[in-house]
Amino acid sequence: MTQERFHGTWYIVPTPFTQDDRVDEASIARTVERAAAWGADGVTVLGVMGEVTSLSDAEREAVLTTVAKAAQGRLPFAAGCSAASPSLVRERVRQAASYGAAAAMVAAPPLLPDVDGLARFFERVRQDTELPIIVQDEPNATGVRIPVSALLAAMTAAGSDVVKLEDPPTPPKITKLLAAAPGLTVFGGLGGVAAYDELNRGAAGTMTGFAFPEILKAVRGALEEGDRVRAARIFDRYLPYIAFEGQVGVGLAIRKEVLRRRGVLETARTRGLAPTVDEVTSAELDDVLARVGIVPGPEPLEVR
Amino acid sequence: MTQERFHGTWYIVPTPFTQDDRVDEASIARTVERAAAWGADGVTVLGVMGEVTSLSDAEREAVLTTVAKAAQGRLPFAAGCSAASPSLVRERVRQAASYGAAAAMVAAPPLLPDVDGLARFFERVRQDTELPIIVQDEPNATGVRIPVSALLAAMTAAGSDVVKLEDPPTPPKITKLLAAAPGLTVFGGLGGVAAYDELNRGAAGTMTGFAFPEILKAVRGALEEGDRVRAARIFDRYLPYIAFEGQVGVGLAIRKEVLRRRGVLETARTRGLAPTVDEVTSAELDDVLARVGIVPGPEPLEVR
Amino acid sequence: MTQERFHGTWYIVPTPFTQDDRVDEASIARTVERAAAWGADGVTVLGVMGEVTSLSDAEREAVLTTVAKAAQGRLPFAAGCSAASPSLVRERVRQAASYGAAAAMVAAPPLLPDVDGLARFFERVRQDTELPIIVQDEPNATGVRIPVSALLAAMTAAGSDVVKLEDPPTPPKITKLLAAAPGLTVFGGLGGVAAYDELNRGAAGTMTGFAFPEILKAVRGALEEGDRVRAARIFDRYLPYIAFEGQVGVGLAIRKEVLRRRGVLETARTRGLAPTVDEVTSAELDDVLARVGIVPGPEPLEVR
Amino acid sequence: MTQERFHGTWYIVPTPFTQDDRVDEASIARTVERAAAWGADGVTVLGVMGEVTSLSDAEREAVLTTVAKAAQGRLPFAAGCSAASPSLVRERVRQAASYGAAAAMVAAPPLLPDVDGLARFFERVRQDTELPIIVQDEPNATGVRIPVSALLAAMTAAGSDVVKLEDPPTPPKITKLLAAAPGLTVFGGLGGVAAYDELNRGAAGTMTGFAFPEILKAVRGALEEGDRVRAARIFDRYLPYIAFEGQVGVGLAIRKEVLRRRGVLETARTRGLAPTVDEVTSAELDDVLARVGIVPGPEPLEVR
Repeated sequence: MTQERFHGTWYIVPTPFTQDDRVDEASIARTVERAAAWGADGVTVLGVMGEVTSLSDAEREAVLTTVAKAAQGRLPFAAGCSAASPSLVRERVRQAASYGAAAAMVAAPPLLPDVDGLARFFERVRQDTELPIIVQDEPNATGVRIPVSALLAAMTAAGSDVVKLEDPPTPPKITKLLAAAPGLTVFGGLGGVAAYDELNRGAAGTMTGFAFPEILKAVRGALEEGDRVRAARIFDRYLPYIAFEGQVGVGLAIRKEVLRRRGVLETARTRGLAPTVDEVTSAELDDVLARVGIVPGPEPLEVR
Repeated sequence: MTQERFHGTWYIVPTPFTQDDRVDEASIARTVERAAAWGADGVTVLGVMGEVTSLSDAEREAVLTTVAKAAQGRLPFAAGCSAASPSLVRERVRQAASYGAAAAMVAAPPLLPDVDGLARFFERVRQDTELPIIVQDEPNATGVRIPVSALLAAMTAAGSDVVKLEDPPTPPKITKLLAAAPGLTVFGGLGGVAAYDELNRGAAGTMTGFAFPEILKAVRGALEEGDRVRAARIFDRYLPYIAFEGQVGVGLAIRKEVLRRRGVLETARTRGLAPTVDEVTSAELDDVLARVGIVPGPEPLEVR
Repeated sequence: MTQERFHGTWYIVPTPFTQDDRVDEASIARTVERAAAWGADGVTVLGVMGEVTSLSDAEREAVLTTVAKAAQGRLPFAAGCSAASPSLVRERVRQAASYGAAAAMVAAPPLLPDVDGLARFFERVRQDTELPIIVQDEPNATGVRIPVSALLAAMTAAGSDVVKLEDPPTPPKITKLLAAAPGLTVFGGLGGVAAYDELNRGAAGTMTGFAFPEILKAVRGALEEGDRVRAARIFDRYLPYIAFEGQVGVGLAIRKEVLRRRGVLETARTRGLAPTVDEVTSAELDDVLARVGIVPGPEPLEVR
Repeated sequence: MTQERFHGTWYIVPTPFTQDDRVDEASIARTVERAAAWGADGVTVLGVMGEVTSLSDAEREAVLTTVAKAAQGRLPFAAGCSAASPSLVRERVRQAASYGAAAAMVAAPPLLPDVDGLARFFERVRQDTELPIIVQDEPNATGVRIPVSALLAAMTAAGSDVVKLEDPPTPPKITKLLAAAPGLTVFGGLGGVAAYDELNRGAAGTMTGFAFPEILKAVRGALEEGDRVRAARIFDRYLPYIAFEGQVGVGLAIRKEVLRRRGVLETARTRGLAPTVDEVTSAELDDVLARVGIVPGPEPLEVR
C-alpha cells in the first residue's frame, strides 16, 4: 500500500434515499461526480455515515455498482466492509475488490467485549484478502473503545498501515500512533472538527463526510505549503459550521440537508432513528451558514 | 395474536456451518425436525444465537427457506427480523411473512442512545406489518438496557403483546411487566438458567436455544400440573448443565458441540469471535453431562 | 426556587492541587474571587470538573469551607453532592446547606442500570432536604444516558426545576425539555461548545468550567439584548479556543493550565488519569490563544 | 507476597445497616467472628458487596476499626481501597495498612476509557505502598472490561501477583491468566456460581460474599484431596441456591436477608438502588433453601 495512494481529503459519501425510501442511485452518482469536482482525493462509501447497517445486501450492491461507475477515471474509492464476523467481512472485501475498490474499510465487530480479540478478528479478516485494509476506529458506532496498543496489534494482524480515527480527541491519538509506528497513514475524521490539529499532528489527511471537502482540502493545502497562519484562518473561519454539522446524532441529517441544498441529493431523508432537521435546526443551519458566509451550491466553494 | 399460539417451550435454532464455513442447510432441517420430536412448541430462527449478524442476506434467505420447509406441518416458527432501521426491519418482516413465519422477533436497534426513541422505532416498524411482533429485550447483543416503562411503550407502539426477555435477572422483570400489563405473553430466555423462577412468576414459556428443550418442557409441564416439587426437582437436577451451557461467550459453542453430539449438527463451528470449545472446556462438558446423567443423542431425553 | 436566582453564567470551579498533590485552598479562594470579578452569576464546586471523585471527605469539606468563605457577599454557590446512594447524597446535601450553598447539584448514580430507577433515587434524595436540587445530566461521568422522559420524572421526584445538561447534543434536548415543561430552568454545559445554540433554544444560562466565563456572559448578554448578530460574532470569534478547551479527556488539564496562566491557580496539576498538557498540547494552546486574540491574565477579558 | 497467605475461601463482608440507616458495627463484628467459625481463610471488607461507594469516609473508617478488632487473632483481612485517582487509592491503602490489613484490593477507576491507562494507574498506586495489592477485575461495578493483556500489565505495574475475577465467564480467564503467568494467585468470585470450574482451572480459592462459605470451602477441600466426585456432588447439590443468590441486582439483598436469618445481621437493609427482597423473592428464597436442604443458622452448615 503506497503512502501516495492513501492521503489527502477523502470524502465519505452518504447513502441518499428517495422520497419513498429507496436507495437513490442518481444522487449517489451526482455526489461522487461533485466530490471529484470539489477536489476530493478519493471517496469512501458504505461507512457509518452511509447508514450501511440500514441497507440490505442488494442495496449495498446497488451503491457499489453506482459508485464504481461514477468514480471510474475520476478518483479512487474505498468501501466499508465491516461486519460482525470475519467471514462476512471477507465476503464483502471480495465484493468490494470485484467492483474495483482501492481499499476496504473495516471497523471492530460491534460490542466486542474484549479488545484482545481484535487482532484475532483482523487476522481472520486478512486471510485471503489482497485488498488494502483501512482499519476504522469508530467507538461511537461499534461500542468498542480501542486503546492504541490494540489498534496497532489489529493493524499488524490486518497487514494494514492505514487507520481512520473517530475516537475523540483524535489529535493525541495521532501523536501516540505515529510515535509507536512512524510509517502509519492516519486519517482524521469526526466531520473535520479537529482537522487543523489532526493535520498538524501528522495526519495524512481527513476522511469524513463533511459537506464541504473544499474547506478541509484548503486547510491541508495551506499546511502542506507551510502556511499555518492561512490554514488556521480558513479552519477558524468555517469552524462554526464545522462544529454545527459535527453534532452527534443530528449531524448526518444536517449534512444531507446541506447536500440537498448544494443540489446533489434529491432528499435529506435518513433511515435510522437519528433526529431529522426540524424547523428550529433548519433556522440554526441558515444562521450558521450565513455567519460563515457559505451559500450552498453545486460549484466548488471558494474558500478564503 | 392469541395467547394459545405463543406460549410453551420455543426452541431457538442456531445457524450451523459446514467445515468450510457455509450455511449447513441439512443440519438446519434436521434441527427443526428434531426440535419437533423433542417436544418444542415452536422454533425461532435468525436470532442472536443464530449468529444472524454474521449472515449475508442470501444466507438469511437460505435459512428461512430451509426452516419453512422443515417446520411445515410440524410446528410454527418465528423469524428474527432485527435491523438498525425500521425500513430494513419492515423488509425482513415482509420476507418472514412470505415464508410463512408465525411471528417476527425484533430487538432494539444496536446502541440506541435514547430509550425514548424505542417506541418511535417500533411504531415505524409496525406501519405496514400484519405479522405479530415479538419484542426482544436483549441488552447483551444490542447494548441497549430497556427499562420496563420503555419496553411497554415499545410493545404498544409495535401492537405487540409478546415479549422475550434476556435482561438478567429476568424473574423480577416478568413480575413488573405482568403487574403493569396483566395480559402480556412473556417468554423467558437466557438459556433457561432462571426458567423455574420465570415460569413461577408468570412467564408463558421459555424461548431459548438450550440444547435440551425436553428439560424446560418438563419443568413447565410439571408447573402447569401444579406439581412444583417435581418441577423444582427436574430443574435442580439439570441445573449444573444448564448453568454450564448458559455461560456468556462460550455458551453458543458449547451448545453447538452438544447438538453435534446429539447427531443434529454436522459441526460445532461458529462464525463470530466467541471462544470455541477447547480441550479443557470439552472435558468440563463431559464432566457436567456425566454429573447430571445426560448421554447426548438424537432421541428425546427421558427427563426424570 | 426562583428563576431569578438560578440563571446566567455560572462558573464551575476546578479543584486545584499543590505541587505535592494537596488541595490548594489559596487557589480556590482566588478562583472564586476572580470568578466574581469576571462577572460570573454564581459558582459551582465539587462537580465533575472539580475531580470530586478523587477527593476524600476531608478534602471535600476543605473545598466547601474555602468556597463558602470566598463566595460570601460576592455570589451564590452550588455544591456537587452526587453519590451512589440516596443516603450519602442526603448527607452531602445537609453538609452543603450547612455551609450556605444556594443549591445542591446531583447526578444519576454511576452505572445505574435502569433509568426507571432514577425517579426513585431522587425521591429518596429529596426526603428531608430543603436545599434546591439541580439535576445534572452527565452521561460521560456516570455512564447513564437519561432520556427526556426519565429526566423529567427525576426532576419531579426531586422537587427540582433546574437541570444542567452535559449530554450532547444539548440544544435539541433543551427544546424537548422546555416543550414538555415550559417553566424549567435549563443550564447548558459542555464547556460552552454549544452555548450560542443552547441560549437561543431557551437555556437560562451556562454552567460550565470554561476558563473565560466573560465570553459566555457576553454571548448571553448580547442575546438578552436581542442582538443575535453580536452574540454570534463573539461566540464564533472565540470558538476555536472554546472547542479546543472542550476536548474530551485533556480538556480539564487545558483549562487548569489556562487558569494557571491567568494567575489564578498555582499549578495545572490534575489527579485522575486524564492526559496532562504535554509539549505538543501546550504549543497548540499557545497557537489557538493567539488565533483568537486572548492573552490570559487575571483581569476580566475584554470581549469584543 | 506468599502464596500461602492468599489462598482459600475468603469471605467478603457486607456492610450492615441499622434500621435507621447507620453502619451497624455490632453486626460487622458478629459477621467477622462467624466467618471465622464457618471456616473462612480470610475476610475482605469495603468491596462492591460492602456497598463501599455508599459509605462516607467516616463510615469506611468505622468499618475498618470494627473489622480490625474482630479479625485480630482470628483471620487476616483485606480492605477495598478503590478510588478514581491514584492519590486517593494510596491514601486508602495507607489507612488500611495502619489498621493491619493483610492486603488492599483495588479495581480499575470507574469508566476508565482506555485500558492502556490501567498500568499507569496501578504504577502510580504502587509508588509508596508496601501493602500487597489484590487487583480486582470488576466490570460490572466499574464499567471497565479488562482484557487479559491489560490485566497482566496492571498487575506488573502494581507489583501484584494476586487477582480476583468477577468478569464472567471466569473459568477461561483463569486458564488464560495462568497460561501467561503460571505463578499468579487467582481468586474466583461472582458469588461462587462457577466455583467448581474455577478451582479446577487453577484458582487458588474463592473470594466472594456468598452467604455459606462453608459450601465453597467444602468444594475446595474435596478438590484439594483429589476427590472431584465429592466436590461436584457438593457444588451441584447447592447450585440452585448459589445461582439464586448470585442474581445480578437483587443478589446483595438476598445475601443480607440470609445473613439476617443466620442471626448475623440485624437487618437486611441495603443502601443503593438495587431491589430489596420483596414478598415474591422471599417466597422463592424459602423455596430454594428448602430444596437444597439449608436451614439458615449461626452454626457452621454441615455440608454433605
